[in-house]
Amino acid sequence: MTIGVVATLKVAEGKNAEFEAVFTALAAQVRANEPGCQAYAVTKSRSDPNTYKILELYADQDALTHHGQTEYFKAAGPKIGPCLGGRPEIEYLDGV
Amino acid sequence: MTIGVVATLKVAEGKNAEFEAVFTALAAQVRANEPGCQAYAVTKSRSDPNTYKILELYADQDALTHHGQTEYFKAAGPKIGPCLGGRPEIEYLDGV
Repeated sequence: MTIGVVATLKVAEGKNAEFEAVFTALAAQVRANEPGCQAYAVTKSRSDPNTYKILELYADQDALTHHGQTEYFKAAGPKIGPCLGGRPEIEYLDGV
Repeated sequence: MTIGVVATLKVAEGKNAEFEAVFTALAAQVRANEPGCQAYAVTKSRSDPNTYKILELYADQDALTHHGQTEYFKAAGPKIGPCLGGRPEIEYLDGV
């Protein structure tokens, strides 16, 4: 069953460029290496320029679990953390 | 530029099956007919069984505009309306 993820991330003031660089590089690696990831889009709120949403779709739970275990995902964490201005909200959704 | 859409829809009590039938049929038509739509996933909240989120990605504004003008999209509206238990929230996001 498809699993959707909406990750809402608030960046700290002045950290947009750094955050975007880390995340677009991560997205490229996800797309290149994860056939079970059907979509992985880094998007920005129109109402709050410091809020980003990562829209993700996975073929199934295995694909999502694999995503979280990749070396590049684990390596991105310490780069993303210092860019954030609040706690991430990660919402998991079940495909219908 | 990619455009993301997160449509949050609350269904009225007892209307889940009808809502899901209309939306999965709509999703199949979108996937079959809109090359500019890169993802269109009907998903359900894990915390609230009456809340659905449609996760959508379009290649650009033209693709999104086209989506809203299709006959099948227009035809779905009157079927979806009676299933809802609140006002839809549609969030538009710009790809990074």
